[in-house]
Amino acid sequence: MKGAAPRIPRKKARRAAGVILGVEVGKASSYRRCRRARPSVGGAQLATRSETGEFLVAPDPGRAGLTRAVRGVDQTGAVQDIAVVEERPLTIYLNSREIVTAMTIGDYPEYLALGFLRNQGMLSDGDEVTGIDYDEELEVVVVRTAVVTDHEAKLARKTRTSGCAVGTVFGDMMAGLEGLTLPPATLRTSDLYALSQKINRTPSLYLEAGAIHGTVLCEGPRPLVYMEDVGRHNAVDKVAGWMFATGASAADKTLYTTGRLTSEMVIKTALMGIPILASRSGFTAWGVEIARQVGLTLVGRLRGQRFVCLAGEERLVRDADLASVADEPGKARRKGAA
Amino acid sequence: MKGAAPRIPRKKARRAAGVILGVEVGKASSYRRCRRARPSVGGAQLATRSETGEFLVAPDPGRAGLTRAVRGVDQTGAVQDIAVVEERPLTIYLNSREIVTAMTIGDYPEYLALGFLRNQGMLSDGDEVTGIDYDEELEVVVVRTAVVTDHEAKLARKTRTSGCAVGTVFGDMMAGLEGLTLPPATLRTSDLYALSQKINRTPSLYLEAGAIHGTVLCEGPRPLVYMEDVGRHNAVDKVAGWMFATGASAADKTLYTTGRLTSEMVIKTALMGIPILASRSGFTAWGVEIARQVGLTLVGRLRGQRFVCLAGEERLVRDADLASVADEPGKARRKGAA
Repeated sequence: MKGAAPRIPRKKARRAAGVILGVEVGKASSYRRCRRARPSVGGAQLATRSETGEFLVAPDPGRAGLTRAVRGVDQTGAVQDIAVVEERPLTIYLNSREIVTAMTIGDYPEYLALGFLRNQGMLSDGDEVTGIDYDEELEVVVVRTAVVTDHEAKLARKTRTSGCAVGTVFGDMMAGLEGLTLPPATLRTSDLYALSQKINRTPSLYLEAGAIHGTVLCEGPRPLVYMEDVGRHNAVDKVAGWMFATGASAADKTLYTTGRLTSEMVIKTALMGIPILASRSGFTAWGVEIARQVGLTLVGRLRGQRFVCLAGEERLVRDADLASVADEPGKARRKGAA
Repeated sequence: MKGAAPRIPRKKARRAAGVILGVEVGKASSYRRCRRARPSVGGAQLATRSETGEFLVAPDPGRAGLTRAVRGVDQTGAVQDIAVVEERPLTIYLNSREIVTAMTIGDYPEYLALGFLRNQGMLSDGDEVTGIDYDEELEVVVVRTAVVTDHEAKLARKTRTSGCAVGTVFGDMMAGLEGLTLPPATLRTSDLYALSQKINRTPSLYLEAGAIHGTVLCEGPRPLVYMEDVGRHNAVDKVAGWMFATGASAADKTLYTTGRLTSEMVIKTALMGIPILASRSGFTAWGVEIARQVGLTLVGRLRGQRFVCLAGEERLVRDADLASVADEPGKARRKGAA
């Protein structure tokens, strides 16, 4: 599968043209019920359908093919069937050029492809996408543009594996930060706590099977688009693909991630134009440094009522009554999607 | 910095020739005291020097340059100085060829370089390494071999960022698994619990600053080499570099990781010849599948007395008295190095 884009028989391919990609903006079209009885998190009941209905794209832990039951034995010798997330290759083409093979859980391949290309600087917001062909059997997605650029040459063929940003482009991404100024924005601490609570209570692949990362695009107190994947970069790329496809504004958004606030996460968020990045996890020094340089607000270690803001504190509006924010029960703590 | 290896003035370079690299096998030469008072984990006092003395390479959270104090504000508006891990580039050359730039915390650059090259199939166990030059200022390490092979051509220039396996080689790695048979070995559950307890109680960068991964090479109940880094692949590569440099045997070892048991982790462990891989974290379906194909024992979700074994159960010897194994207190749970 090198060189020319694979010929995908039209009847096999799921073809999405333009910017809608089959997702109706304004409703949680992909939401289905959990297969299991709704579990509780730290004693708190998970959100109900009407609550998660505020998502435009909600996690879909019950979707066929995202998890698999695998049989093992526990410490007592008892047989256990546990739900394990899938990890499968998806090869992304830009026009006739093979760009990358990403390891992914497999949902939203079109968004993953668009967002990957956008975040690697191979698609610009002004570029016209004339078609996206996804072939589930071949595990290939082809993004076609009206004007064929030389962006395709930016990458030699390589595979991006879970939790991994492809690197050649890293230097270019840093260059893209020069002169970037993120817009002013406001982060109300009351919104931050509301987001954290809603996201933690949302039925997700993480709660179903663990070993997975989540990224959520938020606006004020409302989580809009909740993507999950084996690698945190895929999850962010899917959000970026959704934004590219729907033409969503970035200046009024907050990006929430379950992963660490490393340099790549900060760079991606800044290049997406989003002024605020929040996480349950910690920081790296370079992540903080870049955030300060580009004026990104960085909130980490967000658990219960606690958080630390290491960059862009001027956007914080401390309107929450801390006494009314419950500290996080031990059971609700996210563990180990490392 | 393309093409020819940079000329490193000899007085600047830390030069290591042969296989010893300045680490005396048999003692914890890199171990120093924590800078902070010894914290407790879930009420359990951390290990003392005499206990961590059994490591050949112990974590060194107090080493200058691995963390930085960064000032921020917490939810109450109070100023906080928190320790944050460094993340810096290290460019690895093989002879005159630039291979990769890895994002790393910066310790053990020689092991990281050797292990990266070994795990990518660009160095074989039989290859003679004639020198390793590390230049801290240039952030470059050059590995020189007696016979210059064509392995250098395997990779185009690219950057590996945190949590990331460089991908082109991924296909090759899968190919390397064909015909691989891991040796028989025994995993006593009493050893597994002993390892888990010791590793969790060892002073580490994770306990100092969070947001970091650990990988530990173990033999029976004894953790030998404990490496940490921003990406779990770097941590594994450092262990592989240590094994390459010291000629350590693999067949009698267990590899412990704080990260998820994904396909790449399983492949790396198998290619290193280690028959047992254990983790606090969960699994991906493909990770389990590959482990079963190559006969690797896979133990995950190892917390307190609980674990699940999803592959290679025949190596388990259930000699632990579960009643005597304490379940893990909530506070000791590792969170969020995702």
